[in-house]
Amino acid sequence: MAKHLIIGGVAAGMSAAARLRRLDEKSEIIVLERGGYVSYANCGLPYYVGNEISDRNDLLLQTPESFKRRFNVDVRIHAEAVAVHPDRKAVTIKNLLTGELYEESYDSLLLTPGGSPVRPSIPGCLHPAIKTLWTLPDTDEIRKMVDSGSVRRALVVGGGFIGLEMAENIRIRGIEVALVEMAPQVMNVIDPEMAAIVHRELRKNGIELHLNETVTGFETLPGGGVLAQFGSGTSVEAELVLLSIGVAPNTGFLAGSGIGLGARGHIIVDQHLRTNLSDIYAAGDAIEVVNPFTGKMGAVPLAGPANKQGRIAADNIHGIMARSYTGTMGTAIAKVFDLAVGVTGATEKFCRDENIPYRSVINHSNHHAEYYPGATMISFKLLFSPETRRVLGAQVVGCEGVDKRIDVIATAIKGHMSVDDLTEIEHAYAPPYSSAKDPVNMIGFVAQNILDGLVGSITFDGVKRAVDEGAYLLDVRSPGEFMAGTIPGAVNIPVDLLRHKLSRLPKDVPVLVFCKVGVRGYIASRILTAHGFTNCVNLSGGIDTYNAANGL
Amino acid sequence: MAKHLIIGGVAAGMSAAARLRRLDEKSEIIVLERGGYVSYANCGLPYYVGNEISDRNDLLLQTPESFKRRFNVDVRIHAEAVAVHPDRKAVTIKNLLTGELYEESYDSLLLTPGGSPVRPSIPGCLHPAIKTLWTLPDTDEIRKMVDSGSVRRALVVGGGFIGLEMAENIRIRGIEVALVEMAPQVMNVIDPEMAAIVHRELRKNGIELHLNETVTGFETLPGGGVLAQFGSGTSVEAELVLLSIGVAPNTGFLAGSGIGLGARGHIIVDQHLRTNLSDIYAAGDAIEVVNPFTGKMGAVPLAGPANKQGRIAADNIHGIMARSYTGTMGTAIAKVFDLAVGVTGATEKFCRDENIPYRSVINHSNHHAEYYPGATMISFKLLFSPETRRVLGAQVVGCEGVDKRIDVIATAIKGHMSVDDLTEIEHAYAPPYSSAKDPVNMIGFVAQNILDGLVGSITFDGVKRAVDEGAYLLDVRSPGEFMAGTIPGAVNIPVDLLRHKLSRLPKDVPVLVFCKVGVRGYIASRILTAHGFTNCVNLSGGIDTYNAANGL
Repeated sequence: MAKHLIIGGVAAGMSAAARLRRLDEKSEIIVLERGGYVSYANCGLPYYVGNEISDRNDLLLQTPESFKRRFNVDVRIHAEAVAVHPDRKAVTIKNLLTGELYEESYDSLLLTPGGSPVRPSIPGCLHPAIKTLWTLPDTDEIRKMVDSGSVRRALVVGGGFIGLEMAENIRIRGIEVALVEMAPQVMNVIDPEMAAIVHRELRKNGIELHLNETVTGFETLPGGGVLAQFGSGTSVEAELVLLSIGVAPNTGFLAGSGIGLGARGHIIVDQHLRTNLSDIYAAGDAIEVVNPFTGKMGAVPLAGPANKQGRIAADNIHGIMARSYTGTMGTAIAKVFDLAVGVTGATEKFCRDENIPYRSVINHSNHHAEYYPGATMISFKLLFSPETRRVLGAQVVGCEGVDKRIDVIATAIKGHMSVDDLTEIEHAYAPPYSSAKDPVNMIGFVAQNILDGLVGSITFDGVKRAVDEGAYLLDVRSPGEFMAGTIPGAVNIPVDLLRHKLSRLPKDVPVLVFCKVGVRGYIASRILTAHGFTNCVNLSGGIDTYNAANGL
Repeated sequence: MAKHLIIGGVAAGMSAAARLRRLDEKSEIIVLERGGYVSYANCGLPYYVGNEISDRNDLLLQTPESFKRRFNVDVRIHAEAVAVHPDRKAVTIKNLLTGELYEESYDSLLLTPGGSPVRPSIPGCLHPAIKTLWTLPDTDEIRKMVDSGSVRRALVVGGGFIGLEMAENIRIRGIEVALVEMAPQVMNVIDPEMAAIVHRELRKNGIELHLNETVTGFETLPGGGVLAQFGSGTSVEAELVLLSIGVAPNTGFLAGSGIGLGARGHIIVDQHLRTNLSDIYAAGDAIEVVNPFTGKMGAVPLAGPANKQGRIAADNIHGIMARSYTGTMGTAIAKVFDLAVGVTGATEKFCRDENIPYRSVINHSNHHAEYYPGATMISFKLLFSPETRRVLGAQVVGCEGVDKRIDVIATAIKGHMSVDDLTEIEHAYAPPYSSAKDPVNMIGFVAQNILDGLVGSITFDGVKRAVDEGAYLLDVRSPGEFMAGTIPGAVNIPVDLLRHKLSRLPKDVPVLVFCKVGVRGYIASRILTAHGFTNCVNLSGGIDTYNAANGL
């Protein structure tokens, strides 16, 4: 009878334990979890702070007892693996309640220890008002502080996914929230002009944003709060500080085990999620995964991939077949107040860093038929290869229908599909759900037009240089829209009048055309090109993207 | 200067006209539309009757004037093409306001005449209370009747997409609605057990359903209404009857032109949307398209494909490149009160008719994390090939997130992806949008388990036969669920107790396991298989699907 040991009882570990049992009714399966809970809803924790999820029990998906009953798995909580001994196939375990140390042997070992939030070594950082959110006890502490009414003002350090979710959930409890982020933008996994839309939403909802800013220290204030000192000299008072600056893998206990770790301590696995040592597998936040675009290894701690890896590891441990994990492209989404912000695949930053040739476009479309009540605009950025025409990545921001478009693009990337394929996707259309041409089709059309040479495209960050080099700025929106604000120096000729006013335009300089979102600009570009204004480019995403990107 | 003539000014025609102009600023483009409106929101018409869309102007997306201004296209309304003369490259046109006939020559001709609702030759069918809904004037008439308050009771004939949308939109105006459908189910593009969920929703919302029923005649009643006689002998009074029994192509004017038509009058085109005659193209509801699974030609009148075809036809007319239309797989969705009902690709009926080997599974999952407020269940049916493991089709019914899963599966089908690929799709996960394993991943897992031989599966329609042949019916839900109603003859052993009660089960007969939705049944099946109950099958979709399919 095989004996399987699993270290870590949350996403990947519990997913693997359940699958292993379903594959093999008779083996012995032991899960070791150093915390007091297994299989809890870790992605739901911020929403329990915000009281969106009001019943704490909803967060507890399984208990050791329920898992034993259903899957006949020996789940031990407060059980910390402190050392692995591959030579004699055993793990040393510490019972955290009694301090007792004991050994457990294994035939196969699965490492799913996950990660823990990083605590920076900033002076004053151990003050009790300064928290991280990762486990249920973390959440209990933070919620207790929020519930007590003693927190008037909170500071979130780090503008990643958890930071933003926490900022929102603390804010909706009526607490003033400041958010400090070292980078010039929140959410470093999206490009700046998309992050700019998020900045607007955060400010609109009363989040005080401090970008390009570091925390240099915390001073204790009388009454339980702290004064956070920023690198710029500013300081912010807070009764609650939430640190969300990153996660490090919980792999310290593997030191000396001979199990190969990466530069930042993540476990190195092959495509079958095997470590370098026989019968030892790993999955979840603590491993390095392959990037499908570059083939390079890196850590991408996300719940979806962790759960899927757990199942694959179980299949390989059991030997049902050699199942492969094909990599993580980094699909992610966050709710930020009324917005959803989603990303999949490559971003511009990534393509530049990795020297991947790319083109990008931005389109704005209604999430469903404009004439059906409740239509809202989504901003859709697509990256694609000018060589292979393949889809490389997408970022979508909007109120509704964001997750749908991200999932479709993620599927298209997985299927190695091209921008031409996007134009042909036969989506589900009725007015409450989409338009006859879905935003996915539309962004495919735009990309196709660029690749087919029908229109020149310029992105928001190229406008200044084009103007400096003498480009003629042409706003083809209506006079009313023009009067309400345009790009400085622009001349207004509405697209519907353009054919009659061509003589006004200079033929000897480049013409930079723009409208609100890019559609009229494209039509105008085609008119101009046909009339010999061959050096003409359309502003991708229009003045909407330009203004958002420039914080206007 | 080329002269392009387009016959039909709604979806495909207007899409083509705009694209043609963007490709070629200088050609002459004329659109002939026999109705009084172009480019109107035909898919929105039912919602204007229901007053979901309250402003009629919202339905008018373009006028001839606005289209002229923007695209310099000569759009003629009330202009009916009455004959095509390919020999001299000309079309005879009738001005429907004056009766005048005139000819217009063309260099290229695009046929996008669309279809019209079929009026059956039933006695009494010309009564003024009996309507079809296709155009804006149709809608105006129906809305006027509804607004007048004189309609106490309406009858919808035909349970397709338009019939259901109209039934809902008339019902929400406070009118009693009966719906009569010849087939045993509404929506013949989905399978019966999925349609059964729709039946429940319709009845819940007060729609009186008459299935397996035909209308044999209408008698005039005093006061403006009619008495509809059914084949069964039943009759129904109504002050408004809406016929929605199908659409026929508007291709009568092509008789004698030499343009090849199919058996039901649809225009035959090649992959480039060219007819058999040179310089004549066709697109939209009036053409036959290729089915991507069979390669056979057939009519699939849908707005999304029509719009996409319009653009492709324009590209080919202009000659920018030989663009192909790769076929219509029939992705569709309808809102039916609180439900969304979506379908893409092959159904069981289709596979049986076409002798395509298939397997099918049903899964029920929450549309987003169960612990996040507002989670609702979706019923997800997947069809896949047991030979190639490729995804063939899907049907999804639920309150939220239906369109997303249909779009993902439509994309996967287009990308020739397998059920294994579905398990790996890296979707956008945060609790408000999905679960760590999306329903798409889950249905992939279920299909994979079946193909890998991990679990035997039986569908709702096989239960009776299995029982007749002596199968042991095992309900593995909780005692409370069992007491509230089970499949007659079933024995209850909750899955968590199964390991301890195996001795109760017979080893000499097949065991048919079921739970609520299929998950516990799968776990139980694995336990039983491991303990030597090798002849055991799990009921796909559980008792939820079984009950729905049986009208319970």
